[in-house]
Amino acid sequence: MTTRWLRPTRPGQQPRLEYGADYNPEQWPREVWDEDVRAMRAAGVTIVSLAIFSWARLEPTEGEYDFGWLDEILDLLHAGGISVDLATATASPPPWLTTKHPEILPVDQQGRTIWPGGRQQWRPTSPIFREHALRLVRVMAERYGNHPALTAWHVSNELGCHNIYDYSDDAAAAFRSWLQSKYGTLDALNAAWGTSFWSQHYSDWAQILPPRLAATHPNPTQQLDFKRFSSEALRVYLRAERDVLHELTPGIPVTTNFMIMGEQKPMDYAAWAADVDFVSNDHYRLPGAQSLDDLSFSANLTGGVAGGRPWFLMEHSTSAVNWQPVNVPKKPGELARDSLTHVAHGADAVCFFQWRQSKAGAEKYHSAMVPHAGEDSTLFRDVVALGDTLRKLAPISGTGRTPSRAAIVFDWDSWWASEQDSHPTDRLRYKQEALDWYTAFLDLGVRADVVPSHADLAGYDMVVAPILHVVPQALRERLESYVNAGGHLVTTYFSGVVDENDHIWLGGYPGALRDLLGIRIEEFEPLLDGDSAALDNGTIGTVWTDHVEVTGAGVEVLASYKDGGAAITRRSVGTGSAAYVSTRLGPEGLVPVLGDLLQRAGIVSELPEELRGRVELAVRGDYWFVVNRTAEPVELTGLDGEVLHGSGTLLEARGVTVLRKV
Amino acid sequence: MTTRWLRPTRPGQQPRLEYGADYNPEQWPREVWDEDVRAMRAAGVTIVSLAIFSWARLEPTEGEYDFGWLDEILDLLHAGGISVDLATATASPPPWLTTKHPEILPVDQQGRTIWPGGRQQWRPTSPIFREHALRLVRVMAERYGNHPALTAWHVSNELGCHNIYDYSDDAAAAFRSWLQSKYGTLDALNAAWGTSFWSQHYSDWAQILPPRLAATHPNPTQQLDFKRFSSEALRVYLRAERDVLHELTPGIPVTTNFMIMGEQKPMDYAAWAADVDFVSNDHYRLPGAQSLDDLSFSANLTGGVAGGRPWFLMEHSTSAVNWQPVNVPKKPGELARDSLTHVAHGADAVCFFQWRQSKAGAEKYHSAMVPHAGEDSTLFRDVVALGDTLRKLAPISGTGRTPSRAAIVFDWDSWWASEQDSHPTDRLRYKQEALDWYTAFLDLGVRADVVPSHADLAGYDMVVAPILHVVPQALRERLESYVNAGGHLVTTYFSGVVDENDHIWLGGYPGALRDLLGIRIEEFEPLLDGDSAALDNGTIGTVWTDHVEVTGAGVEVLASYKDGGAAITRRSVGTGSAAYVSTRLGPEGLVPVLGDLLQRAGIVSELPEELRGRVELAVRGDYWFVVNRTAEPVELTGLDGEVLHGSGTLLEARGVTVLRKV
Amino acid sequence: MTTRWLRPTRPGQQPRLEYGADYNPEQWPREVWDEDVRAMRAAGVTIVSLAIFSWARLEPTEGEYDFGWLDEILDLLHAGGISVDLATATASPPPWLTTKHPEILPVDQQGRTIWPGGRQQWRPTSPIFREHALRLVRVMAERYGNHPALTAWHVSNELGCHNIYDYSDDAAAAFRSWLQSKYGTLDALNAAWGTSFWSQHYSDWAQILPPRLAATHPNPTQQLDFKRFSSEALRVYLRAERDVLHELTPGIPVTTNFMIMGEQKPMDYAAWAADVDFVSNDHYRLPGAQSLDDLSFSANLTGGVAGGRPWFLMEHSTSAVNWQPVNVPKKPGELARDSLTHVAHGADAVCFFQWRQSKAGAEKYHSAMVPHAGEDSTLFRDVVALGDTLRKLAPISGTGRTPSRAAIVFDWDSWWASEQDSHPTDRLRYKQEALDWYTAFLDLGVRADVVPSHADLAGYDMVVAPILHVVPQALRERLESYVNAGGHLVTTYFSGVVDENDHIWLGGYPGALRDLLGIRIEEFEPLLDGDSAALDNGTIGTVWTDHVEVTGAGVEVLASYKDGGAAITRRSVGTGSAAYVSTRLGPEGLVPVLGDLLQRAGIVSELPEELRGRVELAVRGDYWFVVNRTAEPVELTGLDGEVLHGSGTLLEARGVTVLRKV
Repeated sequence: MTTRWLRPTRPGQQPRLEYGADYNPEQWPREVWDEDVRAMRAAGVTIVSLAIFSWARLEPTEGEYDFGWLDEILDLLHAGGISVDLATATASPPPWLTTKHPEILPVDQQGRTIWPGGRQQWRPTSPIFREHALRLVRVMAERYGNHPALTAWHVSNELGCHNIYDYSDDAAAAFRSWLQSKYGTLDALNAAWGTSFWSQHYSDWAQILPPRLAATHPNPTQQLDFKRFSSEALRVYLRAERDVLHELTPGIPVTTNFMIMGEQKPMDYAAWAADVDFVSNDHYRLPGAQSLDDLSFSANLTGGVAGGRPWFLMEHSTSAVNWQPVNVPKKPGELARDSLTHVAHGADAVCFFQWRQSKAGAEKYHSAMVPHAGEDSTLFRDVVALGDTLRKLAPISGTGRTPSRAAIVFDWDSWWASEQDSHPTDRLRYKQEALDWYTAFLDLGVRADVVPSHADLAGYDMVVAPILHVVPQALRERLESYVNAGGHLVTTYFSGVVDENDHIWLGGYPGALRDLLGIRIEEFEPLLDGDSAALDNGTIGTVWTDHVEVTGAGVEVLASYKDGGAAITRRSVGTGSAAYVSTRLGPEGLVPVLGDLLQRAGIVSELPEELRGRVELAVRGDYWFVVNRTAEPVELTGLDGEVLHGSGTLLEARGVTVLRKV
Repeated sequence: MTTRWLRPTRPGQQPRLEYGADYNPEQWPREVWDEDVRAMRAAGVTIVSLAIFSWARLEPTEGEYDFGWLDEILDLLHAGGISVDLATATASPPPWLTTKHPEILPVDQQGRTIWPGGRQQWRPTSPIFREHALRLVRVMAERYGNHPALTAWHVSNELGCHNIYDYSDDAAAAFRSWLQSKYGTLDALNAAWGTSFWSQHYSDWAQILPPRLAATHPNPTQQLDFKRFSSEALRVYLRAERDVLHELTPGIPVTTNFMIMGEQKPMDYAAWAADVDFVSNDHYRLPGAQSLDDLSFSANLTGGVAGGRPWFLMEHSTSAVNWQPVNVPKKPGELARDSLTHVAHGADAVCFFQWRQSKAGAEKYHSAMVPHAGEDSTLFRDVVALGDTLRKLAPISGTGRTPSRAAIVFDWDSWWASEQDSHPTDRLRYKQEALDWYTAFLDLGVRADVVPSHADLAGYDMVVAPILHVVPQALRERLESYVNAGGHLVTTYFSGVVDENDHIWLGGYPGALRDLLGIRIEEFEPLLDGDSAALDNGTIGTVWTDHVEVTGAGVEVLASYKDGGAAITRRSVGTGSAAYVSTRLGPEGLVPVLGDLLQRAGIVSELPEELRGRVELAVRGDYWFVVNRTAEPVELTGLDGEVLHGSGTLLEARGVTVLRKV
Repeated sequence: MTTRWLRPTRPGQQPRLEYGADYNPEQWPREVWDEDVRAMRAAGVTIVSLAIFSWARLEPTEGEYDFGWLDEILDLLHAGGISVDLATATASPPPWLTTKHPEILPVDQQGRTIWPGGRQQWRPTSPIFREHALRLVRVMAERYGNHPALTAWHVSNELGCHNIYDYSDDAAAAFRSWLQSKYGTLDALNAAWGTSFWSQHYSDWAQILPPRLAATHPNPTQQLDFKRFSSEALRVYLRAERDVLHELTPGIPVTTNFMIMGEQKPMDYAAWAADVDFVSNDHYRLPGAQSLDDLSFSANLTGGVAGGRPWFLMEHSTSAVNWQPVNVPKKPGELARDSLTHVAHGADAVCFFQWRQSKAGAEKYHSAMVPHAGEDSTLFRDVVALGDTLRKLAPISGTGRTPSRAAIVFDWDSWWASEQDSHPTDRLRYKQEALDWYTAFLDLGVRADVVPSHADLAGYDMVVAPILHVVPQALRERLESYVNAGGHLVTTYFSGVVDENDHIWLGGYPGALRDLLGIRIEEFEPLLDGDSAALDNGTIGTVWTDHVEVTGAGVEVLASYKDGGAAITRRSVGTGSAAYVSTRLGPEGLVPVLGDLLQRAGIVSELPEELRGRVELAVRGDYWFVVNRTAEPVELTGLDGEVLHGSGTLLEARGVTVLRKV
């Protein structure tokens, strides 16, 4: 969670949910700007993010600045009552910088230079890039720190989206420094990395490299540390910009837009959150059967990363994006539904990329608040309507989410480590397993918070930790304490197997959790593609199975493989318990299993029975958000309260109802 | 079309269709050469292309030449009455040149050097390569310009087949020069490329690079201009060789072999045609259901590129090629059918790669006129028979194709631009859509010319312009004039969307064609793989749909989506019309749609009803070529004339009948 | 076969089958070592391979050695009665060496450096690597040459597994030297490579390069020679280490572990075998229907490569590996079955990678003799049981395999050449075709030796040479002599087509074998994916067909294509014969065809009829190994003898019975 928490509001501002977008006026002629401010007001826009990709326009050649246009648009926006989340403008270096210093260009694992042409062509660890970028941050802060429109700083943009893994010599040097700080001695590093294997023993720090293209699987701890380092290197950079801003404009909150969505894996936002004054997130839905659940999951996890505090939805889309293979527009209702689902999980702002759809450039087919077709369009009318809804929900702002009785633990270390190469199977998907459990909770109508592994679990009656692969000794003890205190822990296949150095906990799997679960496994039994394992509870396992031996007292076998052997176990520990699911069951298979475990833990749905599974319920203080998960209208019965959005009686397909409980 | 048109004939030569092949005598011992000339005469060969890959033999070390063997074979051929299309021998640099000057080796988008070992390992923009190549061209022209066997110059070979996209520093420098010529000022370039996006504003020409490997989608206009530049760079090189030849041997026509076939996309031959004295083409069939239609389409387009004048089929294959995953030999009849289909569309020459099948090297499994099995083979006997047929058709030579009433516009700019990245869908295929319309014409028995977008459309009653994505203002006006003058324009989804800079025509799609078509679209609705959209005329759309709003007067909805909304519209404009097809229908779906549009335009088939679809009809002056499109024999009724090839009563499977109308 | 053959036994040692593993004590704390020796003795371990990846530990910085730990473990092992196969420790260079000399790192075809991080990051031709490695070999030999535990030297490890194809400048220089030795003159090389094609004529040796990334298919003879050179380059390196060892410890046999398994193609072990004192092999099963047959095939070919002498199984796995996409553990019985199948085909040792499963590093999920679960595990109990069995089979050691009446020729040159690019089809798979014939033999219950093409064929009644693509004149004559002497030769599609330079034998296919087979083919007719050709004997051909013309006397057509034309022919030549199969029939289709050919050759199964196909029979002297090939128990009838392993009456699923014939 963040170390300090500042809300991006101006003195005396009434509570409100912010509404807005990235705004790129430099892409348009001056006469369009007036149109923009007028239309923003019509749509209820309260905030825009400015100057995100403006470095080349603000500093067209080294040290010469052109701020006139930015001054003008800031004044125009302020006059229109619109706040500004001002970017530091460092997201992409200008051509003059990469021309003068090609040594700031990233190098990929295969040794290929990443050239300009797209965006984010800078090494996170480049001293030269940092020097130029921080100089610009300083100039921006000095010039605009007191502008009345300014309510927040937006550091860079989607840090790491394209440049997270850099294998350049700059990266190598920084990696070594980071390793020296972490391990202190080469002996410690050699032990942690297991360099006795394959003749990798280091006798000098200078011998260490990033895991560049190798003849075969690089050292797994080197790989894992490089993932950690790469996330940390960008975090260090984030702090460097932030520190300049804090020094010069201490009262202005600083954020950067995270990308907690889908399979975005490389940035450990659970750690990053400590470095921003408030958490912001970008979210773009991916197609597929669990698209809506993944939206809810991501919003939920963003809340978890933010420590339960409200956060900003800094970007999402009004309709189609441009970067998927096929970019389908949103259906009627989805614009509001997606936005309000984020609000349901704690968003205090609903912002889009971007205000006006570009007529040129790589994202010109990305939807916006004002489409190519102009204001006379269904899309813009929906945008205006959403602005109205957000105004009605203003009192909710500042309210954190209401904790659930259950939690799903999401752990970047386990995500990274469990999907490395040279494993029992390369079919395992950490995020998908976590999402499947989330879908099962939704299907059962039971709320669950998604939280980072460092979160305080004490308040939860049940904690599900799918594929908790990396279990350092401290986490092992925390989980044991949790169960001994009466908590109900659920975990799955490939959990507890390694420590923080990716070293096996010996003696039989699931290693660090073996005693707590009261089971022992001698060999993993992953399944080939197309193979499956039927359970005697009617579910079907894929991807993975274990031959589970029950070794502890108080262990009950909840389900067995039809071919023999325990598949799901649960060990009672006082009033608590520790359960193990040894195969991938998918959302359908998890529903009865989770249902059983919830019942044993005494956790019941807050929804009327006929609504369970058909709607998602999210709670923020007095506010209930009810989202239709089906493609059919849902009759709302048993839910009473003041209807703030939608209808209290019939939830349309793709619809949302917001109630204030009375 | 070509700026001057010279036919490769010698003084006093009787009209004839040329017949021949690439000939590589240097691959064989001297004694084989006499066998070759004897067998060529037996087969009716009239012309061979010599010395295409002979640089390393002609100039084994820098500046030292060995022309003896070439002198001898030229004399032998001349004595045998065989003309020579003499290559400039610059197609591939010799090892000594790339060893001395590795800086002429191309560099690919990923920064990888393209090494020798194959062929065409030279940068199109290398000053060093050009200097050495032009010196050889000069020597060749001086030595052989007056040789009596010489009837044409063959510049290089398949220019751009492998080296069209070069990202080297030479290419970067030439790209900048080309851009300076095109845009004049950096401001103009910045505006055209939309560099306000993603901080790409250039403040110096030296900052501009080819779209090398980037972190994400490079600037689309940069990409599009690089495609244009790359085609132009090779065209400039072509002109450089041509100019030497014109200077030294002004009476000898100059050509180079284009590759108008299949998905060959990078060379804009519509532009290149202006730089040769006569158009030549290579064609190799690809497998698949539309293989034969694609052959016809390519030949037809070659005629279009040549401005309707006759052209040379410089290469095709007698049977299997060697570069496909699986190389199936031609079935009985296909050798003649394929050759005569080219003649039907304007070819004045039928040539093959190559005369004698190699016993070594990368193309040794590519079929030839004389196969590995030797002259005692079915293949060679078929070759001899084809020579006889071509002799009979001699009077046709010099006759251009007879224009059709309908035309399909083929536009390289739209091909390049519509398939770029970051689009509504990456499933769109420009060439396939054009070919589908062509197949529909064939299925309906109606001839259509395939013409470049710069062609004069005035003579056509109907013009189909599929996916005419790029519509600059001038083209917009030409199309409006065409329709206002009574022409019937048909276009499809994703047309009219951008101008020549890939900038959106704002206000709603299809942008530049919105008013002409009388429709407006707010959002594109591409379809996911496997999805389809049924129309109320019984056809099925895939890949793309639009929600079409009828906005103009005189618009008739010809078909609607079953789920609602217009799918196909037609606006009457005086006696003309402008129709829009909003989805991909495929050949089967296009048949009823095109049939309806043809009927409304008053265009009827020239074929008896029972032959329509079963045969292709092509007309060159008095000559009718009737090609069996089916796998069954077809009874020929209703076609009268003098039978020059095949039978006038029964068209065998894979057969062709050639008639002289009486 | 090996030039000298030394068995790795110590003076006075009783005959025994060796049993053991790679042992990496440096991965474990000192206290584990005592546990290891104790458990090894419990398991019946007789030998371990030490120090394979120990360079970085033995020489932590240049020229400074740390042998203490290795001295200690050698003494401990010796005290425990365990022999040592001591590695030269050069398998992977230590970090200090690649840091000081990055110019020893390999460069791949695309020009990418192969960095440290994995293993084997050295150029086979690097003089610097060789200097450092041979220095270490010398130090090892001097220090341990007289150690009483030492019974064999283990050169490097899996030579070429990852670094076989290096395209660096070192490789280029060595390639040129190798070519100069091979061809003598540039004229000879130009002729052999067919450089008249595509302007590739070389005028200086310095112009020659490895086939680096090229614009299109590189010269095929250059490609083929580079494959030959790359295998030879490592062989030369192998000899360099061996020569040091022979010089310093002449009585200690030298080996290196080959990788004859699955699709391991680049190392021509038929040639390498001449350079070791005894042949060793590593084998890891791949999943799939023919997994068990491939194990038998590989073991059989290892015997063939070893000239029929016994050999060492140096590595296989007790259970799952870690490098496949999904790593399934072995089922009960498979550990013994796989091991004993190797013994059946001549293995005198059964060794594993590795003794104790690693807790860190890239192979920590690779099974071992002692798993993560420890000695209290099913796996370790199976390991102990196998040790017992091997002790019982001790008398078999030293016995070569008993030759079969039939042989399958396996030819690396044909493997390499037949699968090159620019061919009639890229779907042809040399190894799979050979394996299919082997499976057919197994299905028919007839033993066949797999032998290299240089083997003496005279003793075999039938020789099957599938896809014998490369037939130099000498081989042509050997095969003609074999048939004329009464042998029965069987060959297939794409055989006899080229000579050793990959030049076509002209006049019709199958070229060099045309007259011997009495057939002629004018064009290859490969099949597209999904296409097939039915034969009139009820089988179905895929991948390839030929239009076979019978031209010789005494040719019988054994099967025809239903669409016409001979598919399988057999020419009687005195008492011998030469048969041709023109399509891929797969194992099922080959069974009746091979059955017929065996019958005509008078070869019958040694198995009772009811066992044929259900079991594999392998014979070593008096010992019969009967392996269950099915998933069901098999009743053993008709086999009499002393049962040394398994049951003489019922062969369990995955079971083996070993009999001593009486």
